[in-house]
Amino acid sequence: VPFQIDPIIPFQGNEDFTRISPLRRIPVFIDGQVTLGDSTAIGEYLDERYPLPLLFPKMPAARAQARWLEEFADSRMGDVFIWRIFNVAVIRPAVLKQPRDDAAIGETLRDEPPPIMDYLESVAPGDGFACGDLALADIAIAVHFANLRWSRTAADLSPWPKTIAWIDRVERTPALAKLTSLAERAMTVRRAEWRALYGEMGIALSETTYAGQGFRKGPMSV
Amino acid sequence: VPFQIDPIIPFQGNEDFTRISPLRRIPVFIDGQVTLGDSTAIGEYLDERYPLPLLFPKMPAARAQARWLEEFADSRMGDVFIWRIFNVAVIRPAVLKQPRDDAAIGETLRDEPPPIMDYLESVAPGDGFACGDLALADIAIAVHFANLRWSRTAADLSPWPKTIAWIDRVERTPALAKLTSLAERAMTVRRAEWRALYGEMGIALSETTYAGQGFRKGPMSV
Repeated sequence: VPFQIDPIIPFQGNEDFTRISPLRRIPVFIDGQVTLGDSTAIGEYLDERYPLPLLFPKMPAARAQARWLEEFADSRMGDVFIWRIFNVAVIRPAVLKQPRDDAAIGETLRDEPPPIMDYLESVAPGDGFACGDLALADIAIAVHFANLRWSRTAADLSPWPKTIAWIDRVERTPALAKLTSLAERAMTVRRAEWRALYGEMGIALSETTYAGQGFRKGPMSV
Repeated sequence: VPFQIDPIIPFQGNEDFTRISPLRRIPVFIDGQVTLGDSTAIGEYLDERYPLPLLFPKMPAARAQARWLEEFADSRMGDVFIWRIFNVAVIRPAVLKQPRDDAAIGETLRDEPPPIMDYLESVAPGDGFACGDLALADIAIAVHFANLRWSRTAADLSPWPKTIAWIDRVERTPALAKLTSLAERAMTVRRAEWRALYGEMGIALSETTYAGQGFRKGPMSV
């Protein structure tokens, strides 16, 4: 499915950004039919518009489990890995120029990931992916571990080897490996250079942009 | 679709409750195929298993908009109407025996609902429902307003008349009206009498129960 990217920072979009994403979050997906500001709704829509590759399994029970895992990743893992770890370790220091609070990160690491990891270990497949073929659920879960690495904490995940092996398989899939590599390269250059970098990596860029200046939570952000 | 209910309080389930609902939340849906602890996944599954009534519109673009609105209800409205209002006004005083914090409620009411209501007013249909026929999105949004009433606050929603009229239409649909009436009657009796009340109202009850004693957030609750 061909696509163009507009690389922007959530909460930093321009005035029009609030119109396409009421919570001023990313991702936002736009085509001739819809404008969607939620990754789950985007995944479901792509699955209905484009027959292959499947983003959710075909059979209702497996689809339901995949949706549950994806929701678990978005809500529960997002709360811990994005808001309580990555936000404190990376976003606040970089964007809001607040000092990194390693005490808070340490406390969160002690209390929060273990039950999440225990649960993932209970659903982690011994081989392949969580619901058969690679699905959005695997990706939604895996990306939190990239955020954890980028947070440069002392998190020790060795007690959950099935989960580590599963996430490793997901991260090695070509599409996600390409995206992770792009993200890691983007972190090494300034924002003004993102478009050049993306172009260099063969990713099509949108002509218009919703990028804005300065952090603004907007009327309804988290 | 025939069903049986096990009336329990979230976070107060027994030990088995954690197994069927890792976040110890409700609703949980169980049939011979799946055990699902998330309302969105339940709705999607029911839509696939039972052709009618549709819980989501049929056409991809309308389905996508319905999913976005349902997500908006679950995440953004849930954060404000459940966690920051109903939780402070009703749950904490009743369950945790903490005093009701009217100052916090007043501050939340001043800042949080207006942008949410502005957004709902922008998507509220002048007639009928948000995506054509009644859909899960309408119900997911409407139930927050029952929680707001039950919180007994001084919230004034008159600046958003299209939204009020839309929610009123949703609340008058027979299925939701029956459920709201059940909830309001349940509030007037003790928990030990719930099963008798439900039976009296013609609602089938499950033989087994996941009810537990005492508030316990469990390993991964919010």
